[in-house]
Amino acid sequence: MKITIAVIPGDGIGPEVINQAKKALDAIADTYNHVFLYKEAQMGACAIENTGNPLPDKTLEICRKADAILVGAIGDTTFDNNSTAKITPVQGLLRLRKELGLFCNIRPIKTYEGLIHNSPLKREFISGTDILMYRELTGGAYFGIKELSDDGQNAFDGCAYSVEEIARVTHLAFKSAQKRRKKLTLVDKANVLETSRLWRKTVTEIAKEYADVSLEYLFVDNAAIQLIVNPKQFDVILTENLFGDIIADEASVIAGSVGLLASASIGKKNGLFKPIHGHLSQFKGKDYANPLASILSAALLLQHVGLHEEAFAIERAVEKSILLGITTEDIKGKNNYVASTSKVGDFIADYI
Amino acid sequence: MKITIAVIPGDGIGPEVINQAKKALDAIADTYNHVFLYKEAQMGACAIENTGNPLPDKTLEICRKADAILVGAIGDTTFDNNSTAKITPVQGLLRLRKELGLFCNIRPIKTYEGLIHNSPLKREFISGTDILMYRELTGGAYFGIKELSDDGQNAFDGCAYSVEEIARVTHLAFKSAQKRRKKLTLVDKANVLETSRLWRKTVTEIAKEYADVSLEYLFVDNAAIQLIVNPKQFDVILTENLFGDIIADEASVIAGSVGLLASASIGKKNGLFKPIHGHLSQFKGKDYANPLASILSAALLLQHVGLHEEAFAIERAVEKSILLGITTEDIKGKNNYVASTSKVGDFIADYI
Ligand SMILES: CC(C)[C@H](C(=O)O)[C@@H](O)C(=O)O
Ligand SMILES: CC(C)[C@H](C(=O)O)[C@@H](O)C(=O)O
Repeated sequence: MKITIAVIPGDGIGPEVINQAKKALDAIADTYNHVFLYKEAQMGACAIENTGNPLPDKTLEICRKADAILVGAIGDTTFDNNSTAKITPVQGLLRLRKELGLFCNIRPIKTYEGLIHNSPLKREFISGTDILMYRELTGGAYFGIKELSDDGQNAFDGCAYSVEEIARVTHLAFKSAQKRRKKLTLVDKANVLETSRLWRKTVTEIAKEYADVSLEYLFVDNAAIQLIVNPKQFDVILTENLFGDIIADEASVIAGSVGLLASASIGKKNGLFKPIHGHLSQFKGKDYANPLASILSAALLLQHVGLHEEAFAIERAVEKSILLGITTEDIKGKNNYVASTSKVGDFIADYI
Repeated sequence: MKITIAVIPGDGIGPEVINQAKKALDAIADTYNHVFLYKEAQMGACAIENTGNPLPDKTLEICRKADAILVGAIGDTTFDNNSTAKITPVQGLLRLRKELGLFCNIRPIKTYEGLIHNSPLKREFISGTDILMYRELTGGAYFGIKELSDDGQNAFDGCAYSVEEIARVTHLAFKSAQKRRKKLTLVDKANVLETSRLWRKTVTEIAKEYADVSLEYLFVDNAAIQLIVNPKQFDVILTENLFGDIIADEASVIAGSVGLLASASIGKKNGLFKPIHGHLSQFKGKDYANPLASILSAALLLQHVGLHEEAFAIERAVEKSILLGITTEDIKGKNNYVASTSKVGDFIADYI
C-alpha cells in the first residue's frame, strides 16, 4: 500500500517524539512492504515564528491532499502565559480541525499490566479498564462566538450545538459500542445547560436505532468522580468538546501517564492522529520525553487506513517495551531503568 | 450567641443528613450556651411538588432573614432524566445563589489519615493534601443566555464574565492564600476561551496587590490530571463556575468519598452551607447515606458566624468517628463495621 502522510512535528517536544513515530512507521513499511510518503509541514508556534500564521496555507494544502495527518505537539509556554496575544499556536490546530471537518475525537484508555504499579491509583480500582472516549471536536465553546468589550471589562464565549452536529458523532459512538461491550455513557450537564439538554434529547432519540446498546447518563461533575473511583464501569463514553477535553485528560491517569495516550480525530475524509499531551517545552530537545503516545498515534493512523495487522504490530512492540522496562522517566519500570526518547524509539522499531 | 438558621432539607437523602447536622448543632448549643433558631423551608423537587415553584417566595424570605442557610440536597432522578422539563429542582438552588449574591463557593479538600486506606489513590500520592478550592458561583455558563430554537434543532449557552465578577472572588482567594501556604493556582482554558483570557488578565493584575502569594496558571485539562497525580502541589485553587463544579467534585476522590465534602457559598451577607454530594435518591429514607458532609457543612456555618472553637469541636468529633470506624458504608473503616446515618449523627452529637 502506498499512502501519503502529512507530518506536523509542531512545537516543544513535538519534533523529537514525531521522529520516533516515523521510525516505527518506517519499520512497518519495511516489514510489510508498504510505501509511506511523508510530507512535512509547519503548524503552531514555529509556524507563527516563520510565517506569522499558525496554520500556513501550504500546511492546510498538504493536509488536504494527504491520506492521514500525524501531529507531534502544539503550543509554547510564552504563548500560554500571554492572555492578550491575538494570534496563538492552538488556533492552528483548531482551524485545521474545522477546515478538515474532524468532528470526532477518539481516545482509547486502558491499563498496561506492566505499568499499574506506577499509577497513583490502586491496582484493584483500575486493572482491566478499557474505555473508548468519543469527544465532539468541531462544535461547542471551542468554536463559538468570542467577544471582548471595547473597554476590556466584559468577555463572552458562546457554546452552540445543533442536532446534526450531535447526531453524527453519536452514531459513530453507538456503532463502536456495538462492536464492544454494548454500553454507552453520555456525559453532560443537562441540569444546567441548554446545549446539554439538546445532547440528552438527541442521544436518547438515536439510541432507539441501537437497541442492543444500553445508554446511561452522567453529569460531568459526577463523571469526573466515577472515572477515578470506578473506571471499569465504562465502555464507550460520549461527550461534547469542552467536557471531553477535561475528562479525557483526567482519564489518562488511569493508564499511568499522559505520555501514553494517543488520539484519533476523524470526520469527513482524512484523519488526524496525535498524542494528547501538550508541548512540554521544558523538556524540548532533551531526549527525555515519552514517545509512546506519538508512536501509538501512528498505530491509530494505520488502523484508520485499514492496516490493522500493522497497527497491532506497533501496539505489541509498545507493550513489549513497557514489559521490559525500556521506557522514559514518567513510566519507568520496577527496575528503575530510564531510557531516552530515541532509545525507546529505536527499541520499538527494532522489535517491529 | 443567638442565630437564626434557615434549614432546607431538600430532596433525596437531604432530610436524613440534615437531621444529623441539626443534632450536632444542638449539641454545640448545649455545650457552649448558644441559641440556634431553625427556620425550616422548602426548595427543589419537594417544593415543585407542593407549590409548583422550586424556590417558593416564602423560602427566599426565610433565607434573606436568616444569619445562615443550611441545605441538605437538591434534585431528583425523574427530573435528572427529563431533558424537556421547564421547571427543575436545581433552578431553585441556582436562583437562591443569585438572589443572595453568593458569588464565592469554598470547598476544603484534605485527607483523613483514618480513611486513606479507602481511597482509590495510593497513600504516598495523597497523604497530607490540604487544598482550598475557590469557585465563582453566580456567573459564567450557569447564568448565561440559554436558547433553544423554535424547531428544537439548535441550542445555545452563553458564558459571560466581567472584570468585577472575577475580581471579587479573586480577592477572597488571595486573602485566604495569604493565611495559608501562600500559593494560588488559577485554573482556566485561556488557550481557547475569551472569558478565560479575561480571568487570566484580571487575576494577574490583582496578584500585584498580594506580592507574598505566588501565582500559577493551569489549563483545566491539565488541572484534572494534576489533581490526581500530585494534589500536594496545591494550596488555594481559583476557578470559574463550570470548571469549579467539575474539578472540585473530582478532587473529592482525594478525601476518599464525596460523602465527606462540605462547601460554603458566601457573598454579600449570609452564607449557604451544603454538602457537595447530590440527592442520591436511591438511598432516600434508608438511613444509609453518609451524614458527615452535612455535619461538616454545619461546622463551616459556625466558622462563618465566628464560632471558631465550636466549629473545631464538630471537626474533632468527625475525625474521632472516622478514627473509630463509626462510619457509613462508603467510608467504612478497616474493621468493616458499617454504621447507619443516624448512628453516626448520634455518635457525633454525644462526642461533642
Ligand atoms: C491544545 C488544545 C486546544 C487542545 C484542546 O483543548 O482541544 C488539547 O488540549 C487537546 O485536547 O487536543
Ligand atoms: C446541583 C448543581 C446545579 C450544582 C452545581 O453544579 O453547581 C451542584 O453540582 C454543586 O456543585 O453544587
